Amino acid sequence: MIKQDQEYYMREALFEADQAAAIGEVPIGCVIVWQNKIIGRGHNLREHSQDATLHAEILAIQEANAYLKSWRLEGAQLFVTLEPCPMCSGAIINSRIAEVYYGAPDPKAGTAGTLLNLLEDSRFNHQAQVTAGILQTDCAFRLKSFFRKIRQQQRKK
Amino acid sequence: MIKQDQEYYMREALFEADQAAAIGEVPIGCVIVWQNKIIGRGHNLREHSQDATLHAEILAIQEANAYLKSWRLEGAQLFVTLEPCPMCSGAIINSRIAEVYYGAPDPKAGTAGTLLNLLEDSRFNHQAQVTAGILQTDCAFRLKSFFRKIRQQQRKK
Repeated sequence: MIKQDQEYYMREALFEADQAAAIGEVPIGCVIVWQNKIIGRGHNLREHSQDATLHAEILAIQEANAYLKSWRLEGAQLFVTLEPCPMCSGAIINSRIAEVYYGAPDPKAGTAGTLLNLLEDSRFNHQAQVTAGILQTDCAFRLKSFFRKIRQQQRKK
Repeated sequence: MIKQDQEYYMREALFEADQAAAIGEVPIGCVIVWQNKIIGRGHNLREHSQDATLHAEILAIQEANAYLKSWRLEGAQLFVTLEPCPMCSGAIINSRIAEVYYGAPDPKAGTAGTLLNLLEDSRFNHQAQVTAGILQTDCAFRLKSFFRKIRQQQRKK
């Protein structure tokens, strides 16, 4: 995929991240592309749902599965603003997504190259090709601004 | 937790595995225990749902989150008939489950000690204590019988 298209889809993932921020959730967004079309979207909903599994990627994968009426997302590309955690990396492997593009690295839980690279580990029955750093500055800025705002609110209390 | 209780809850997870087998799903079952009570149950529903995320553990975690009205399952124990995959190991970390008891090891995707040990990796912000091999023979037998039956059906075609 050419860089221009990668950035186009990452901006769609950033739009999802903004939807999360607007309701006070940590701003992480994801879209899934299949045959040049977005077939799944998601943003972090952990606090609103009080469900530990509702990360952006899980919601986007579930929507894409429903769209294709198949748990197999072969040939699909996933765009996410923050490097996937182990749960989401595992869901990407389980759904056979072909390519993963992420924005900002996650030094605390990233398993698409930072702490581990689950997605390209040949011991699993599927590997996804990883490309890091798509619109990294924008993706990281969303998170930094969010946490700065939280700290400011806590200081006011 | 004493061995007798561990086996009691694993039999409940095996009951869930049998529910999966009864509808033609790979027989994997899970229960989550909190303060000596089962607050979440699940069995593999990947084929019926055509949703790559609907493993036994994810469904049990979602049910337990709903029961406690919290994404945090601190102090909870999870019992599952097959060693968790990366997705389910990640969901266990994300939901802060304290202890994981599994039946049969998974040489293809197990990340609670076999291929990796995500659950006890101190780089993540939470660790779950792992105990392997609870009713291992029974748990493995369910899977072996299921796949033997599938192979027999395929030969008849």
